[in-house]
Amino acid sequence: MFLRKSPTHKFPKVAIALAAAVAVLAPTLAHAEEVEYLTQFNANILWTLVAACLVMIMQAGFACVEAGFTRAKSAGNIMMKNFLDFAAGSIVFFLFGFGLMFGLDAGGFFGTSGFGLGGVAAGDLSWTYTFWFFQSVFAATAATIVSGGMAERTKFGSYVVVSIILSGLIYPISGHWAWGSLWLGDDGAGWLEAYGFCDFAGSSVVHSVGGWIALAGAMVLGPRIGKYSEDGKANAIPGHNIPLAGLGVFILWFGWFGFNPGSTTTADDTIGLIAMNTSLAACAGVLGSMVISWFRFGKPDISMTMNGALAGLVGITAPCATVTPGGSIIIGLVAGVLVVLSIEFIDKVLKIDDPVGASSVHGVCGAWGTIACGLFNVDGGLLYGGGFSQLGVQLLGVGVFFVWAFGAGFILMSIVKAIFGIRVTKEEELKGLDIAEHGSESYNGFQLFSNE
Amino acid sequence: MFLRKSPTHKFPKVAIALAAAVAVLAPTLAHAEEVEYLTQFNANILWTLVAACLVMIMQAGFACVEAGFTRAKSAGNIMMKNFLDFAAGSIVFFLFGFGLMFGLDAGGFFGTSGFGLGGVAAGDLSWTYTFWFFQSVFAATAATIVSGGMAERTKFGSYVVVSIILSGLIYPISGHWAWGSLWLGDDGAGWLEAYGFCDFAGSSVVHSVGGWIALAGAMVLGPRIGKYSEDGKANAIPGHNIPLAGLGVFILWFGWFGFNPGSTTTADDTIGLIAMNTSLAACAGVLGSMVISWFRFGKPDISMTMNGALAGLVGITAPCATVTPGGSIIIGLVAGVLVVLSIEFIDKVLKIDDPVGASSVHGVCGAWGTIACGLFNVDGGLLYGGGFSQLGVQLLGVGVFFVWAFGAGFILMSIVKAIFGIRVTKEEELKGLDIAEHGSESYNGFQLFSNE
Amino acid sequence: MFLRKSPTHKFPKVAIALAAAVAVLAPTLAHAEEVEYLTQFNANILWTLVAACLVMIMQAGFACVEAGFTRAKSAGNIMMKNFLDFAAGSIVFFLFGFGLMFGLDAGGFFGTSGFGLGGVAAGDLSWTYTFWFFQSVFAATAATIVSGGMAERTKFGSYVVVSIILSGLIYPISGHWAWGSLWLGDDGAGWLEAYGFCDFAGSSVVHSVGGWIALAGAMVLGPRIGKYSEDGKANAIPGHNIPLAGLGVFILWFGWFGFNPGSTTTADDTIGLIAMNTSLAACAGVLGSMVISWFRFGKPDISMTMNGALAGLVGITAPCATVTPGGSIIIGLVAGVLVVLSIEFIDKVLKIDDPVGASSVHGVCGAWGTIACGLFNVDGGLLYGGGFSQLGVQLLGVGVFFVWAFGAGFILMSIVKAIFGIRVTKEEELKGLDIAEHGSESYNGFQLFSNE
Repeated sequence: MFLRKSPTHKFPKVAIALAAAVAVLAPTLAHAEEVEYLTQFNANILWTLVAACLVMIMQAGFACVEAGFTRAKSAGNIMMKNFLDFAAGSIVFFLFGFGLMFGLDAGGFFGTSGFGLGGVAAGDLSWTYTFWFFQSVFAATAATIVSGGMAERTKFGSYVVVSIILSGLIYPISGHWAWGSLWLGDDGAGWLEAYGFCDFAGSSVVHSVGGWIALAGAMVLGPRIGKYSEDGKANAIPGHNIPLAGLGVFILWFGWFGFNPGSTTTADDTIGLIAMNTSLAACAGVLGSMVISWFRFGKPDISMTMNGALAGLVGITAPCATVTPGGSIIIGLVAGVLVVLSIEFIDKVLKIDDPVGASSVHGVCGAWGTIACGLFNVDGGLLYGGGFSQLGVQLLGVGVFFVWAFGAGFILMSIVKAIFGIRVTKEEELKGLDIAEHGSESYNGFQLFSNE
Repeated sequence: MFLRKSPTHKFPKVAIALAAAVAVLAPTLAHAEEVEYLTQFNANILWTLVAACLVMIMQAGFACVEAGFTRAKSAGNIMMKNFLDFAAGSIVFFLFGFGLMFGLDAGGFFGTSGFGLGGVAAGDLSWTYTFWFFQSVFAATAATIVSGGMAERTKFGSYVVVSIILSGLIYPISGHWAWGSLWLGDDGAGWLEAYGFCDFAGSSVVHSVGGWIALAGAMVLGPRIGKYSEDGKANAIPGHNIPLAGLGVFILWFGWFGFNPGSTTTADDTIGLIAMNTSLAACAGVLGSMVISWFRFGKPDISMTMNGALAGLVGITAPCATVTPGGSIIIGLVAGVLVVLSIEFIDKVLKIDDPVGASSVHGVCGAWGTIACGLFNVDGGLLYGGGFSQLGVQLLGVGVFFVWAFGAGFILMSIVKAIFGIRVTKEEELKGLDIAEHGSESYNGFQLFSNE
Repeated sequence: MFLRKSPTHKFPKVAIALAAAVAVLAPTLAHAEEVEYLTQFNANILWTLVAACLVMIMQAGFACVEAGFTRAKSAGNIMMKNFLDFAAGSIVFFLFGFGLMFGLDAGGFFGTSGFGLGGVAAGDLSWTYTFWFFQSVFAATAATIVSGGMAERTKFGSYVVVSIILSGLIYPISGHWAWGSLWLGDDGAGWLEAYGFCDFAGSSVVHSVGGWIALAGAMVLGPRIGKYSEDGKANAIPGHNIPLAGLGVFILWFGWFGFNPGSTTTADDTIGLIAMNTSLAACAGVLGSMVISWFRFGKPDISMTMNGALAGLVGITAPCATVTPGGSIIIGLVAGVLVVLSIEFIDKVLKIDDPVGASSVHGVCGAWGTIACGLFNVDGGLLYGGGFSQLGVQLLGVGVFFVWAFGAGFILMSIVKAIFGIRVTKEEELKGLDIAEHGSESYNGFQLFSNE
């Protein structure tokens, strides 16, 4: 129970033999047998676990961003959905999702082993636990993205069902196609991997999937009361706590240094480049959104600029390990511009009410990041003389993920709507989901404007 | 002063000899002597330090949870108590606590060396510094738990005294009983260790101690004005900032991945299982509290659900290294249910006003986690055919920690009350502690309802 | 694209040869060739990257502290400036700053290579990427300090110019003087290094530079409307969100464990002492500020106590690797007292309106920390029998950094003022920068007192 600082019992026997060999060769080294080294295996566990912790705190970031960008009267409900996404998501990912995503492959379409981590050989367990933890926080990220697009009008009970099916079924199946081999190697490989699809840390696998399901949810739900005037004009419904949202963006940015560099799951020397690319793309995303919003609205817009950081981060997620720092700046800059245009397009042209812009930040910029691999990859990208081959695969992947995630999401939401109902009543929506769904208020003691 | 990337001077001589041996054997390897490896010793320092940082940020989590779950008029005072707990606690833990907890054992009851880290051999210093840092943030955690139970009515000056004696005396003495051997091995072992008491990361040592002292504090202080009606009915005093509390819970969850896996203080391959167990128990705690509150109150309660995450985390803290993922889910689920029942029982039946439920979350669920070792431990647990032996020791420990922490806490609070007074005046309490104790408000510019 | 858990291709060939040699010597070890160890090189990358992430989240801490300590009507503007500082700062630091700070030295005054990381040998790239990332978050820290001193009245467009020149030119040039050798060794060494100037993690290089530029900015801008009465009396303008500020301080404290121990950029056994010293100094700073404010104002002041933590952290930044834990407590205690006296002096005597006390926390306490090396360094400090030599060099450095940073900052601000104007109009200031500069409010739905 009580571990000591020199856990010799855990050290591979070979090292002791090595030291013994040296002791024969160099008998003057009295203390040779005392020195132990960290195995690469344990180092990989250490790094992957630290990275997983960074990804885990992204849940806090999402909660702050989504709550901050929506109204005070539903802030507690947003927090609840984020806790639920992580809690229910992790447990169903343990029971079903992990096996579907990484188990023995069936026809390239889904995994068939490892449910509840059953059947894992003893020698593989310590790595599997660590890898599971890392992947579970990724699954939770995809789930949490969805709650933003469905904010302020979804029945909580129905959301529980959506969240469980998302983490246990929709996310892991498409995840298998692109990442199936990460645990069992070729035995687990999905069909999209065979084409050389590039999505290092999940622009498509995680972010687009979350973003497209959020879009489907926002469409099935319909806009919040007051969002669109009778003449079709889109009204801004500004967030209630911008410092909270800003804090959330910084926390997400922080967590992304686990998300991207951690996706090596190996403590090697490539993580520095990945971190640098991640940081530069986020910075460029901030500048892109700030400048484009300044041009379009006459002033640098705060929420757009914050979304620009996330856009850059989503965009660099797929190509972070395979492009140059200069490429990363361009990828982030484009993402920052794109997110502003996409938010306006979805809001004003498509007239879909996505309260925090989840479909633009994660869906559209996730697609952009996936495509960017085909353009900027040093090895195989169009702009580096690699021709259209990689780009073609990337476009295929973008299409496949859209069709799957939006399609499955739309069907799921529609079924839930038909069976349970998916939207609260008008009275409940006006009152706010905190009171209506949870019987409490988020800001007791503060005087709020009514119906805000 | 300026370190370079290749600190050869620090590398153990044996490695150089090893390389030299190889150079003799394989002279074609021109660069053999350039490769250095990370020693397990330095890896343990690295891991323990990173884990300590994660535990440190739990102070922010506690501050947010406690402030968010209480009223706006005392939010700054809550922050102050959290800063004080860490600040004064670390310094007294350096001067007294560490030595009492981990120094050379006297009769199994307390340590007698290492005060101010004096008398440590030069070769042991680098590990001792790291270990001290890790343990100091644990001590601070125990101290900070107490402030929640005593919120909104305690004299700040008196709290300073309580906090110092807690970190410098009460916590380290019982800590010695269970963890005394962690620094000096058998030379420092406490009496409870001899029985094989299992508390890997501190369900009892840290959480129950904090929770039971919080309970004692809440009892000695009496309830806040307005908490109980004249007919004895308990009135809810809702928190003023639920998103802040939610953020705090996520931060605590994040920090717990330092608390539990870091308690190996070794960069080995067991940390993956511990992290996975920690995560699953927290998730199950969320679900347990959410579902039970849904049944009892008709709606899923936000603050109960958030407390459920903490309940699961406290519950898995003792058994995190010795149970299966499946066991962890059950442990967390039970903790999540238990915390709701306990909060109601203490609030409505015992009529003790613990504003944030600290005694239930940390005291009761800490006891549950300690007992859970006796049930779910793969090696020795009752449910795994280990009989009643381990369970008996765990029940002994639970009893011992309750008697010590509640008893010492109650005596301490009573003495402080007799000498300095422990509660602010009615006027001060109604005005709020921010104005009364610190002469400032926490939310300048916001319109608050009076006396909120 | 898909990495596996055993990345043998990355493992240095020598290790394989080593294993082969052993296999010859000890043929019974069938699995000898399977064990790999983490190289110290990759371990340094891992540690430096993790530390850089901790420093990165300090941006969130600064944003929360600065926003919390100022008024609600400009809180979003504060967040924007913090995003901008990091975003623009990182990109100009990539293009210009890094080369000026760490490139091939020209006369001791600035670097001349490495712009955009051009010309780096392939074998040095993986370390350089990591080192760049670590240094980029340091540069961002210096930039962000400035925004606090210029809060609530600066034109956003003008601030963009200030921020870019600060990160791209002012910070890296003085940084070169003290830290130039950190990347290229002697080839990059600056003039101040030659004297043995001690500033391990940047009390002067980062904090004083930021603090003195903040002071220059506050002077050129002039005080906020209402800050000084016509009779010269200083009026307190209290912050709008103390829990947010408190959270920010805890986040900064957390990040400092990357800032100071990470400045080893080596995963060695010195990091434990550095972390311990950092923690103790922060704790002592809290106590110093709390006690002195209690004496001076009759009550323990919340914002002063929070600033005390930062003061202790800034103070220990230079000497963290070269003093004892006891010395660290004294250094932190002095810093905690000093920051209170300095804030009052600058506010009431100099009548400079520095809304968050940036010049005191970072400028004055940075100078104190730099001087403290000359007093408390175990090797060379005056109090340890080292005479006046080190102290003299430290005083020289303090003077040099003040003259450079305050001077360059003042000139920069004055030029920006002359060309673009640096202050918003009275109407805009009264309205708040959120509306005036960004067209949005930070707390929609909350009832605020007008002009707050």
